[in-house]
Amino acid sequence: MAMNAVTAYAAPAAKAPLALTTVPLRPVGDHDVLIEVRFCGICHTDVHQVRADWGNAIFPMVPGHEITGVVAAAGSATTRHAVGDRVGVGCFVDTCRTCTNCVAGQEQYCGDQVATYNAVDADGRPTYGGYSTHVVVDENYVVRIPPAIDLAEAAPLLCAGVSMYSPLVRWKVGVGTRVGIVGLGGLGHLGVRIAAAMGAEVTALSRGAGKRDDALRFGADHFHTTDTDRAFDELRGRLDLVVNTVSADLDLDRYLGVLDLDGTFVNVGVPERPLSFSAFALMVGRKRVAGSLMGSIRETQELLDFCAAHGFGAEIEVVPAEQINEALRRLSDGDVRYRFVVEAATIGSGQ
Amino acid sequence: MAMNAVTAYAAPAAKAPLALTTVPLRPVGDHDVLIEVRFCGICHTDVHQVRADWGNAIFPMVPGHEITGVVAAAGSATTRHAVGDRVGVGCFVDTCRTCTNCVAGQEQYCGDQVATYNAVDADGRPTYGGYSTHVVVDENYVVRIPPAIDLAEAAPLLCAGVSMYSPLVRWKVGVGTRVGIVGLGGLGHLGVRIAAAMGAEVTALSRGAGKRDDALRFGADHFHTTDTDRAFDELRGRLDLVVNTVSADLDLDRYLGVLDLDGTFVNVGVPERPLSFSAFALMVGRKRVAGSLMGSIRETQELLDFCAAHGFGAEIEVVPAEQINEALRRLSDGDVRYRFVVEAATIGSGQ
Repeated sequence: MAMNAVTAYAAPAAKAPLALTTVPLRPVGDHDVLIEVRFCGICHTDVHQVRADWGNAIFPMVPGHEITGVVAAAGSATTRHAVGDRVGVGCFVDTCRTCTNCVAGQEQYCGDQVATYNAVDADGRPTYGGYSTHVVVDENYVVRIPPAIDLAEAAPLLCAGVSMYSPLVRWKVGVGTRVGIVGLGGLGHLGVRIAAAMGAEVTALSRGAGKRDDALRFGADHFHTTDTDRAFDELRGRLDLVVNTVSADLDLDRYLGVLDLDGTFVNVGVPERPLSFSAFALMVGRKRVAGSLMGSIRETQELLDFCAAHGFGAEIEVVPAEQINEALRRLSDGDVRYRFVVEAATIGSGQ
Repeated sequence: MAMNAVTAYAAPAAKAPLALTTVPLRPVGDHDVLIEVRFCGICHTDVHQVRADWGNAIFPMVPGHEITGVVAAAGSATTRHAVGDRVGVGCFVDTCRTCTNCVAGQEQYCGDQVATYNAVDADGRPTYGGYSTHVVVDENYVVRIPPAIDLAEAAPLLCAGVSMYSPLVRWKVGVGTRVGIVGLGGLGHLGVRIAAAMGAEVTALSRGAGKRDDALRFGADHFHTTDTDRAFDELRGRLDLVVNTVSADLDLDRYLGVLDLDGTFVNVGVPERPLSFSAFALMVGRKRVAGSLMGSIRETQELLDFCAAHGFGAEIEVVPAEQINEALRRLSDGDVRYRFVVEAATIGSGQ
């Protein structure tokens, strides 16, 4: 199957609407697989990247790093994935493979990571993401999607899911751990599901009450709104771990107050303004504020297997490609329950 | 030995100079020891408390929570300390003894702690600190001073020392751990000594170069000044743990940059303004900002035994009582190497 270009939705320039176009597809190398994309989640990152909010934007830009699909061709040296396999690709498609982080299987912290899109690979070629009919990826950066999970519902696990799973594992969540999940969006709803499946006592914290029923359905034991002091008074000193998915400014002193001794507040959102809180809020109770960024390939595979075993994926709204711009706008407005997933079949077939 | 008052140096009101006076001494209860104070360290906390910087100030206030002395009388039910024993008292003299933190031997995080001074005990009496000829303390909140340590050099271990020891133990410092100590004052110089004695590779970070020789003498392997970017460039990603003793505002993004994957920045200083840093600085490398407050009674005893075994105490300047106000002023100006210790014999004898 020889192709050197694919049909994709790309942003031609910063803040311009995405449009159907053609972008180069790299040849399938010995260690690569060609993936026929079936679904691609729309992540908040995509909103920022197509606006060039974080600088370093390469156009045309094909966003999308929550990719699921089926292997359509496999390089001669591949051993992990074969034609016909259901597979997924997350936030990055290569790393240096030699640094201590790579060797330790924590390649999400490799300093020479090649992002799935809006990056340049080791051969100097721009990378293009999953709002596309096909992608070519080194098989070591491709995970298996277990049969029990729908490819559409699996897509958001590749970024949003593992971004929650990684800190939950890292901070040893298990039966009885008292976990708070702040924000019930793409990441947060998966955080609730994953933490609940791990056996934790889960408290969902959301700005308004609108997502209460959903939170309980996702497995939360408790639900609190954060628009008054009440939740913070009631929860004072009661949680072991809080994972914050909200990018907006929060009054962190209030959130640190809900932690018990040695409790940890993990930030996985990407606020534009600095995190800020009083030193006392941290000292009294020996608390911690920690960061966490994505997850490793191994963790991503673990999560997919975990979700398959527990029978859940993301709660999604599938959208056809022609609604990508509307979906990005709605996502920006917080109007999604709980993740948009683009159906790649609506993009058109490869050239 | 019946006494109901002692001679002490007390602040009569907020921001007033300390003056020689007489304050009540509580009766020696069954579980109490009467301690003839020999030395008392002057802590930055004392500077803030006598100014009522943190509110809740009770006057007259006798500061001092780095107390060493000799047991002069022991209650009928005491089992841990006897007349003639060399002993010490740190930041608190009672806790609830029933909460999970107390039961776990982490009573420094008890919510019902009675501070050594400027607090009210369970019977409603104000507590008075160690700028005094005598104190009466429940023996469970009194530690042994091993014979190998001078009582004057031991005094600062009771607060400054254990405030460093506790996070160094908590974050598992040992042979080969790459530890940075920020600020070379009362806490920092002990942090260098303790971390070095633990076998860590110690990097001292100080604003200017003036304390370089001392830092190396204290056991630091490396010394960097923080007034330029150079240290931060050279140390980028190289440390496992940074313990910050500086209360002034720091550019925390720079300090987070020197941490390796999973590195921790522990704040033990008490800055007036919030801690503030970018979420990215934390996420990239899964780093943590943690707090730590004092240490437990058990840790304090461990530290004293550790220092005795390793043959060091604090580096001090002993001052007579009549220089307390000058010492507080010099401490406030950062003009001390490295801790003032008041010699209680110069206060006068008990009434």
